[in-house]
Amino acid sequence: MNYAIKPEVLREFCAKACEKFGYSPEYAAITAEVLTESEMMGTHSHGTKNLVNYIRKGLAGGIRIDADIRILKEGPAWALMDADASIGMVPAYRSMELAIKKAAQCGIAIVNVKNGTHYGASGYYACMAAKRGMVGISISNTEPNMCIPGGRGREIGNSPFSIAFPQKSGDPLYLDIALSAVAALKIEQAKKEGRTIPDTWIVDKDGFPSTSPEAFFDGGAAQPMAAHKGYGLSMAVEILTGVMSGGAILHEMTSWCWDLPTPNKVSYSSVAIDISKFMDLPTFEDRLQEYIDSIHSTPLRKGSARILVPGELETARYKNALESGILLPSDVAENLLALSELAGLELNLEKRTECDESSGDACI
Amino acid sequence: MNYAIKPEVLREFCAKACEKFGYSPEYAAITAEVLTESEMMGTHSHGTKNLVNYIRKGLAGGIRIDADIRILKEGPAWALMDADASIGMVPAYRSMELAIKKAAQCGIAIVNVKNGTHYGASGYYACMAAKRGMVGISISNTEPNMCIPGGRGREIGNSPFSIAFPQKSGDPLYLDIALSAVAALKIEQAKKEGRTIPDTWIVDKDGFPSTSPEAFFDGGAAQPMAAHKGYGLSMAVEILTGVMSGGAILHEMTSWCWDLPTPNKVSYSSVAIDISKFMDLPTFEDRLQEYIDSIHSTPLRKGSARILVPGELETARYKNALESGILLPSDVAENLLALSELAGLELNLEKRTECDESSGDACI
Repeated sequence: MNYAIKPEVLREFCAKACEKFGYSPEYAAITAEVLTESEMMGTHSHGTKNLVNYIRKGLAGGIRIDADIRILKEGPAWALMDADASIGMVPAYRSMELAIKKAAQCGIAIVNVKNGTHYGASGYYACMAAKRGMVGISISNTEPNMCIPGGRGREIGNSPFSIAFPQKSGDPLYLDIALSAVAALKIEQAKKEGRTIPDTWIVDKDGFPSTSPEAFFDGGAAQPMAAHKGYGLSMAVEILTGVMSGGAILHEMTSWCWDLPTPNKVSYSSVAIDISKFMDLPTFEDRLQEYIDSIHSTPLRKGSARILVPGELETARYKNALESGILLPSDVAENLLALSELAGLELNLEKRTECDESSGDACI
Repeated sequence: MNYAIKPEVLREFCAKACEKFGYSPEYAAITAEVLTESEMMGTHSHGTKNLVNYIRKGLAGGIRIDADIRILKEGPAWALMDADASIGMVPAYRSMELAIKKAAQCGIAIVNVKNGTHYGASGYYACMAAKRGMVGISISNTEPNMCIPGGRGREIGNSPFSIAFPQKSGDPLYLDIALSAVAALKIEQAKKEGRTIPDTWIVDKDGFPSTSPEAFFDGGAAQPMAAHKGYGLSMAVEILTGVMSGGAILHEMTSWCWDLPTPNKVSYSSVAIDISKFMDLPTFEDRLQEYIDSIHSTPLRKGSARILVPGELETARYKNALESGILLPSDVAENLLALSELAGLELNLEKRTECDESSGDACI
């Protein structure tokens, strides 16, 4: 069974729930906005499902409800912020706002944030810049969940990476990936269905590739995407974010959702590039459209219906959510109902039967 | 049979060869420097082996020997350059020099170059910034050589991506990758040895994964690394470089080495980030060392000798080259001897038997 809800109803519910637990109206509004928009794009594993856990983390002391997010240092095209263990969406949002403002002056800007908490869907922040006619890049380090080539155990994070560009249509072209071979969701699904998995997805507890999804949950680890390439990129993301911010690295971070009393301590970088410095934005958008049209006209292989570009499916889901409400997988609905009870706030979900997918889990 | 040569002898030979064919002393010196240093790092597929082909391309009209490389537009933290079909190393080198200069003022800077030619080893340019205490990033689009998920044929480039950081030791920590699953060299080697290959490396002429290396050479294509993730990253690189520079995209580029009379028309981006704005450089280097030490102390899986970080093997080769000369694979030696004949310049190579690897081929 699935459920549906109108975007504005979900946004208001999330904001009210945050305020109920002491978050300022601004913090509540930003958090509700980021999570609802991510839900509309269909990024259910990183959307409103997690709000009840962010709230619980605030109650347990792992998130500072009245955090004093501040700029520690800044210059023409850069800044360093301290998130002060705030709920993650607010410092990430503010860092991209600041990067956009500085990029409008200088052409490009980078804003780093330390002492942050899990910020949800990386793609949201990259798209903030794209919606203002800029390139947006958002990266974060994460607590270790992948193996390192030649090693065993979960020893490095699968750091999210996203990049977005403004399109003529008004919708961003955007890529939002983690640097592991696949999302934990796919491993879970294979386990549920009793299927084996390709030997490039995970390693077992001894560090060897395994085709059994169970091995992941029995002391195994995700494999980096493309082996040493994903490992190297993950190191690069962690150096740019955690090391360069003076923030936490590797096992200095803990799980944002399994260890509620402890601050998560991830770091983020937000980068914006002002395209209009290089060429008129309409000229860029026309040329980007030509590029996308060329990609779309790639000769198909037999059985293939069409070529997709990054963000295309998400945009279609977003439009659908605007027109007929957001379809919520059952586990998202459950968590929202749990939050409704915890906050003592009414929440009416509409029952639907359109699909029955699981949202995946940002906790793994 | 392998050969060896002292770095300073190779550098001088390359510079003299360039001057012999009309390149200015500055163009010759930069080209010789980039190619020799890449050779010392062991990046033989993208080193001095290719100089004879760059020279031939200049003679055939595909490289403009007296190119007028110029800045078209610039601002505090950005610039757009026109390479004017120059030999690739010079505009790429200058763009990173300019990015470093601007980053020292603003904290970060991006310099784009259009109308360029194959620039050799991407990692060289990233390391230029690292050697000055900055983060360096270098990317380029390339003529199509990979498939697009759901499509068939070679329809998008395997765009090189590199990033470098300054280490306490003075050697850069750097990652230099292409966005294909593996280098063409590995496919060639498997073909030579009659081995099958994993089904994630290539597709056949119909666009389906193949375990036969022959299929690559019979109308097949490389697969992007990590499937849709590598495809999306390749699009992102091409939009940042080709589209945003007003340069060529996709099939508007031609092979730099198979089509000598035609300009290659790749675009590059050079990005530098001034770490000292965020924290004192020695503090950064100490913290980076802690990070590297943690990674190195990852529990090993059985049979694994040690954990490597990106650039570690290259640095060891570099030191070896400084001490006892650069070991040249036989095909690199052959191409250098061909250049020696073409230019009428003497070249003495020392015979060695240490190893017998092939250099790989940047033409594929």
